[in-house]
Amino acid sequence: MTKRISLLGATGSIGIQTLDIIKEHPSKFQLVSFSAGKNIEKTREILKQFSVEVVSVSREEDARMLQTEFPKVHVFYGDEGLVQVAANTNADVLVNAVLGSIGLKPTLEAINKGITIAIANKETLVTAGHLVMQAAMDKNVPILPVDSEHSALFQAMNGEQRSEISKLIITASGGSFRDQSRDELKNVTVKDALNHPNWSMGAKITIDSATMMNKGLEVIEAHVLFDISYDDIEVLLHRESIIHSMVEFKDTSIIAQLGTPDMRVPIQYALSYPNRLERANAKRLNLAEIGKLHFEEMNYTRYHALKLAIDAGRAGGSMTTVLNAANEAAVDLFLQEKVSFLEIDELIERAMNEHVNISSPDLETILQVDTQTRKTIQNMIK
Amino acid sequence: MTKRISLLGATGSIGIQTLDIIKEHPSKFQLVSFSAGKNIEKTREILKQFSVEVVSVSREEDARMLQTEFPKVHVFYGDEGLVQVAANTNADVLVNAVLGSIGLKPTLEAINKGITIAIANKETLVTAGHLVMQAAMDKNVPILPVDSEHSALFQAMNGEQRSEISKLIITASGGSFRDQSRDELKNVTVKDALNHPNWSMGAKITIDSATMMNKGLEVIEAHVLFDISYDDIEVLLHRESIIHSMVEFKDTSIIAQLGTPDMRVPIQYALSYPNRLERANAKRLNLAEIGKLHFEEMNYTRYHALKLAIDAGRAGGSMTTVLNAANEAAVDLFLQEKVSFLEIDELIERAMNEHVNISSPDLETILQVDTQTRKTIQNMIK
Repeated sequence: MTKRISLLGATGSIGIQTLDIIKEHPSKFQLVSFSAGKNIEKTREILKQFSVEVVSVSREEDARMLQTEFPKVHVFYGDEGLVQVAANTNADVLVNAVLGSIGLKPTLEAINKGITIAIANKETLVTAGHLVMQAAMDKNVPILPVDSEHSALFQAMNGEQRSEISKLIITASGGSFRDQSRDELKNVTVKDALNHPNWSMGAKITIDSATMMNKGLEVIEAHVLFDISYDDIEVLLHRESIIHSMVEFKDTSIIAQLGTPDMRVPIQYALSYPNRLERANAKRLNLAEIGKLHFEEMNYTRYHALKLAIDAGRAGGSMTTVLNAANEAAVDLFLQEKVSFLEIDELIERAMNEHVNISSPDLETILQVDTQTRKTIQNMIK
Repeated sequence: MTKRISLLGATGSIGIQTLDIIKEHPSKFQLVSFSAGKNIEKTREILKQFSVEVVSVSREEDARMLQTEFPKVHVFYGDEGLVQVAANTNADVLVNAVLGSIGLKPTLEAINKGITIAIANKETLVTAGHLVMQAAMDKNVPILPVDSEHSALFQAMNGEQRSEISKLIITASGGSFRDQSRDELKNVTVKDALNHPNWSMGAKITIDSATMMNKGLEVIEAHVLFDISYDDIEVLLHRESIIHSMVEFKDTSIIAQLGTPDMRVPIQYALSYPNRLERANAKRLNLAEIGKLHFEEMNYTRYHALKLAIDAGRAGGSMTTVLNAANEAAVDLFLQEKVSFLEIDELIERAMNEHVNISSPDLETILQVDTQTRKTIQNMIK
């Protein structure tokens, strides 16, 4: 049977690779709706390649233009457009590959409609994990990870009992600056930071990898997805990104998932789950060719953002919302060259210190805290 | 519920560690019968520690003596005694940890009685895998691997579909002589060969590790247990023995099982399957401490025995019986210092060359070929 897919963030790195997978398996997957941002050229291309029902773009004027060009497609725009795409009940699976906490509302909308979520948008789970997981449980909707680390953890848990897990071990490549000391990071440029050694990704996630905030968000995401205590989640430096993550069980056995660094593997797994599909012509891992895998203990002083994330996770409540919004705002300022690389962590820490934590926040509170935090960060640099 | 366990080969390395596991979990496991060889001191000790119903030893005189000392226990001896232990229908699981093809008949007997097999005795599967697996299928009896590599493969397959496997990757430490060339092996002594770098094991298996025949037997065992073509079984040199083996799936994902080299983990898993039990005080794997894992391509010229084993496996029929019997006989001669280390391979190859292969051999044929091959090897050194 063909799985019908909605895709949020079709023109981003994960979105494009999701479209590759759909194209590779035309009898298995069908794109029924998607959202894009401001890249109208690419949006047009996707509309020509796939016969979709619903599309959404960022700006109203782009939507009007596309509606004229593609009269049979329902064209929406803005935040409301994202929700329209997510709420397309002709879809079996929603791939959420947008960036940032903007993915939250559409995710909740899709869950309410009973649509399976394949989640690449970790900010949604960081900012409001408890709401998403509760809604998913209420509606009996699976939340499938797309991130390579969480897909690895999920695969390592296949056929295992969650109660027999003793520890999650999330691997971290170390990002663009893994061989530099914290002192040496004072004057790094946006260009330096965008040069990731293993993975080719979007700008925001590449900066998050350089600060190690990405790994921090992943720790929170793992806690939310798999309901494992922060005490039992470990981050291990592994520069080759070959072991994508591991699960230790109480009998001391560790199950790991390995592969070449290729996001299409976890994307495809989330789409094909519980089955696996052939990936013809894909590069297979050759460990003899690689020769050595390296492992090092994580340094939480060197990577202060990771410590902040885990602190926020342990605090719970609205603190992870603050962490995420502050990070999104600070990374944005760094990409605009308005703050330095090391100021990203500093701004986040200040925002967290200023915040009075609210326990079990509802959706409205989360959206308010998110907006307020972004303003706080803006005010800090005035 | 307590699992009742029969144990063949209680005084060997795997046997002793199996008893450790039973002792560690007295509410989970109960020893009901066991066999031992000529180590009567150790047999007596086990009889005092565990309240068993049936025991068997090698020699009649030892059996008579033990019967007087332990009047409530049924004491047997010899090959027939092994079958009596295996056929104890009060057992839920038979752990077969004897050495050599002598384990075949008791295994078939236990399968016929519907008793689950935990198999550490790889020679049984090499010499007559097709008979064992057919009987297990007919009686719907699970065959659970105890070998660390096969346990790793089995664990990596948890929750996965066998049809989605593309390759098994069996790791090999390289044995005692991994850093020597084949030329340098001409004059190695029994003592040299018994010094394995990672695992503490019995003499026969340690020699098999040094020749790499052990890995060859494991390839055949994996083929038999998991019904995977020899084309899709790879051996990878991995000196640390930390990744115990891996399964590659058709989507290019690899699932691996890792741990410290401790046979009690796979032994316990075979006993507790499908559950995992705590291993209190056991050393947990610390990859940061280990720092590096190494991988190298296997050299089939350097390790000629591995090539012979795979050749025998591909030939099928009675050829694996010849391989195994020739290897048992040749290793025995090496341990008696009657042949040199490199002559082990040579004798096996000659026995294989002299054998006219018989397809789908029945039990009688296998036992005949086994006996004949041992004679052939004896005659070669006269």
